[in-house]
Amino acid sequence: MQIKIDRNSRTPMYIQIRNQIRAMIFDGRLRPGSLLPPERKLAESLGVNRSTVLTAYRELKADGLVDSHVGRGTMVLSAMSEVSESYGEFDPPLYNQFFSQLSERANDPLLRDLLVVANRKDIISFSAGISAIETDPVEALKGIEEEIVSQPNHEALKHTPTEGFWSLREAIADLMHKRGIGVTPDEILVLSGSQQGIDIAARVFIDPGDVVIVEEPSFFSALQIFSAVGARIIGVPVDDQGMRVDVLEQLLQRYRPKLIYTMPTYQNPSGVSMSLERRRRLLELAYRRKALVIEDDPYSEISFEGARKPYLKELDTYGYVIYLSTFSKILFPGIRIGWMAAPKPIIHQFTMIRQLQDLHANSISQWIVERFLRSGRYDAHVQRIREEYRIRRDIMLDALLEDPVPGLEWIKPTGGYYLWCKLPEGTPNMSLMVNAADRGVSYVPGTAFYLGGKGGQYMRLNYTYPSREDIPKGIERLKEAITATLKRPPHKYPGEEKSIKPIV
Amino acid sequence: MQIKIDRNSRTPMYIQIRNQIRAMIFDGRLRPGSLLPPERKLAESLGVNRSTVLTAYRELKADGLVDSHVGRGTMVLSAMSEVSESYGEFDPPLYNQFFSQLSERANDPLLRDLLVVANRKDIISFSAGISAIETDPVEALKGIEEEIVSQPNHEALKHTPTEGFWSLREAIADLMHKRGIGVTPDEILVLSGSQQGIDIAARVFIDPGDVVIVEEPSFFSALQIFSAVGARIIGVPVDDQGMRVDVLEQLLQRYRPKLIYTMPTYQNPSGVSMSLERRRRLLELAYRRKALVIEDDPYSEISFEGARKPYLKELDTYGYVIYLSTFSKILFPGIRIGWMAAPKPIIHQFTMIRQLQDLHANSISQWIVERFLRSGRYDAHVQRIREEYRIRRDIMLDALLEDPVPGLEWIKPTGGYYLWCKLPEGTPNMSLMVNAADRGVSYVPGTAFYLGGKGGQYMRLNYTYPSREDIPKGIERLKEAITATLKRPPHKYPGEEKSIKPIV
Repeated sequence: MQIKIDRNSRTPMYIQIRNQIRAMIFDGRLRPGSLLPPERKLAESLGVNRSTVLTAYRELKADGLVDSHVGRGTMVLSAMSEVSESYGEFDPPLYNQFFSQLSERANDPLLRDLLVVANRKDIISFSAGISAIETDPVEALKGIEEEIVSQPNHEALKHTPTEGFWSLREAIADLMHKRGIGVTPDEILVLSGSQQGIDIAARVFIDPGDVVIVEEPSFFSALQIFSAVGARIIGVPVDDQGMRVDVLEQLLQRYRPKLIYTMPTYQNPSGVSMSLERRRRLLELAYRRKALVIEDDPYSEISFEGARKPYLKELDTYGYVIYLSTFSKILFPGIRIGWMAAPKPIIHQFTMIRQLQDLHANSISQWIVERFLRSGRYDAHVQRIREEYRIRRDIMLDALLEDPVPGLEWIKPTGGYYLWCKLPEGTPNMSLMVNAADRGVSYVPGTAFYLGGKGGQYMRLNYTYPSREDIPKGIERLKEAITATLKRPPHKYPGEEKSIKPIV
Repeated sequence: MQIKIDRNSRTPMYIQIRNQIRAMIFDGRLRPGSLLPPERKLAESLGVNRSTVLTAYRELKADGLVDSHVGRGTMVLSAMSEVSESYGEFDPPLYNQFFSQLSERANDPLLRDLLVVANRKDIISFSAGISAIETDPVEALKGIEEEIVSQPNHEALKHTPTEGFWSLREAIADLMHKRGIGVTPDEILVLSGSQQGIDIAARVFIDPGDVVIVEEPSFFSALQIFSAVGARIIGVPVDDQGMRVDVLEQLLQRYRPKLIYTMPTYQNPSGVSMSLERRRRLLELAYRRKALVIEDDPYSEISFEGARKPYLKELDTYGYVIYLSTFSKILFPGIRIGWMAAPKPIIHQFTMIRQLQDLHANSISQWIVERFLRSGRYDAHVQRIREEYRIRRDIMLDALLEDPVPGLEWIKPTGGYYLWCKLPEGTPNMSLMVNAADRGVSYVPGTAFYLGGKGGQYMRLNYTYPSREDIPKGIERLKEAITATLKRPPHKYPGEEKSIKPIV
């Protein structure tokens, strides 16, 4: 009997022994009626304590695989070894052949790489898109342990309805009223993060070939999600007033979109807010052409100056707008609680699909959020992070303006998480990524926010996650990286990058 | 200016006033340059405090919608009212026309209704499928608040990688070794409940028309999920030794399934475990016909007597088995943490799709589970619930045997959560549901576990959630309901239920 012990393994030795004997019994190497080596002998040959082997044998016995009799040793039982002939030889599967069309459309590794980069500790990250650690409202956790345990039915640990705890839906409806949007709690669906709302929308509405309008640039994951379900995605450019609704109007002569996906306030990645005029015009077009509008709103509360524009959902009198928002950018990203506000027939259909995905958002997070909203500390917390993020934005702007890189341009955001920069003409964006990482700074390249490889001349910088001290250091590194990248352009003939190579 | 105050609303009155004035500004009823009524006058006409109106006006001013000058009153600004002509009249959308084929396939309200029934407090629920409140391991929460706050980077509140916290993946790999399955942490994907794994599998593998083999009966949500993505679902009957692998073999002459979905151990709903011989034979068929196997394993740790059969994943030498399990049935259902163990190429593809769905499982739950696994209290907890659930099973069996209903039959489960009962011949199952609910007891009708309306002669009873005291009471009510239903059968001609009516 061949048993191998790995002394460096995390797996206890008795489990290693037990599992290998199990395998021999199940694949027929150990036949019913055959004897295991005496414990002492096996212990000696493996160089382990006798008690280790004893424990392994005891577990095999408890599993009904062996029996031991004084004087006869430990014998493999026939009951569990009904079949012991080994069958033929087979090949491992070629996994790719099993994957669906959706799988194939979803194979973009970029976001995954970004998450990994964001976890590196030696780098100043302008790529993360998450809140500051320093402003985490840890007071939201105060007393949770005691309260959870003292709930008579442990509500925070049990299932909730698919739509979410009723009391959380009420608290969110109250928050919506404060934002100027009149909805009832049954028009609220609690989500495991607002991105889940985009994914469910894609499943609820989109058959392959259906048209979805997006902004260009747009939220990375939204592009990925709509691509994965096989939508035909049509981009509408964004300028400093938001989506170019005049371009949209032209496109609507040709296309009949089911959905218009927009982030009208402090857009990710551009930072711009859509003007009131365009908001109204967008709705009018949606009404006229019968397209539903997804208003994705993670950032509107992070406003620094100027008046906040009205929400599309606030302006919508006919029930075309599906509003998504989240606590990830205000409370904690890891808490995975967002919500949707929409007319009841939409809530119903989303609930049907959502039930298949994950049943409901995790109950503890729902309960922590509800508790925090009711505590009345939410407003003060929002005020605090607005202040802090405005300061960080200004530090970043100051650092960019000091000894500026010629040709580097940006839009000053009046809210939200991001600074959208245009690189100097001709900066090779892949080289810059590498040069920046070498110098210990990361950002998200503009290509992440476009389909089809466009956007290489842009980069997105986040100013909420890096500390006040790190922002100037990171910008310094970034400026060095840009300068270095421009000094040593890749050896290419002029115009080569833009020309199309014949595929042979 | 027409403003209506609802004094019974949860929305504060100043927000009601503010929101109505906003709406009038945005839709053009209040033109730029027009004056709002003086605060005192509006307060009087509405019968509210002057300070209420003051607060509303102050917020309108902060939003940049109005401005006030001493002596001139409060005036609507033009800046935010760029467009104030109202556009034409439109209709609300007919939402159904927007729904995808997937939406239409997913419109089964049964699970939703079950969740709602399970929340009713006046009923003894045998339908819930959840753990006992009395055995909740609330010790898992001890000290969490302090520990979360003291983490330097608040790991429990921030994003985790899509695959899950590395330390949790390690702890789960250790647990898998204890179960006899040798996997490395990078072969583990942490899920928001194991059902998410079924849903992702459906998206990763299934194009409409692809064949999926399921057991008959099978897990309700799995049937729903595979239906929704348009799979062709082929059922294989289950007997007291589990899936009828001989029937499967015949079906494989005709069909080329991509997936075989099975719950081999303490199956939901039948409670049976597949014999070792059939497990090996199932794998051989999968190897031979190149079908991947999903081994769904929520219940194997809840074993009452007899030896636990080896896992398919344990027996699988070629990498065809995708193993799913969960902490919902062991710790807390609301914590929404499950996992998948599979070959790395499968983990990778699942991660790509999962990232689109919800980014990652919520961090606090991941961290609570990891902490509990490492505490070493997991085994003792499992032992405790095994004991308790065995007792509750026995109480249920005793209650059924006492003064038994003629014709009511069941399989005695040796583990898991459920007792699967066959109703007396000819029991009209919809009437029974209603009669049982009238008497204050609920169960899941067998039809939930079959496609196409089959299974009406079965019901699934859960014995883990109802208390020891409630189980005999509930069974008493159920027996009364069955007897009453059989006494007053619906007025029908014999055989009518089975005949097919012409559709005219």
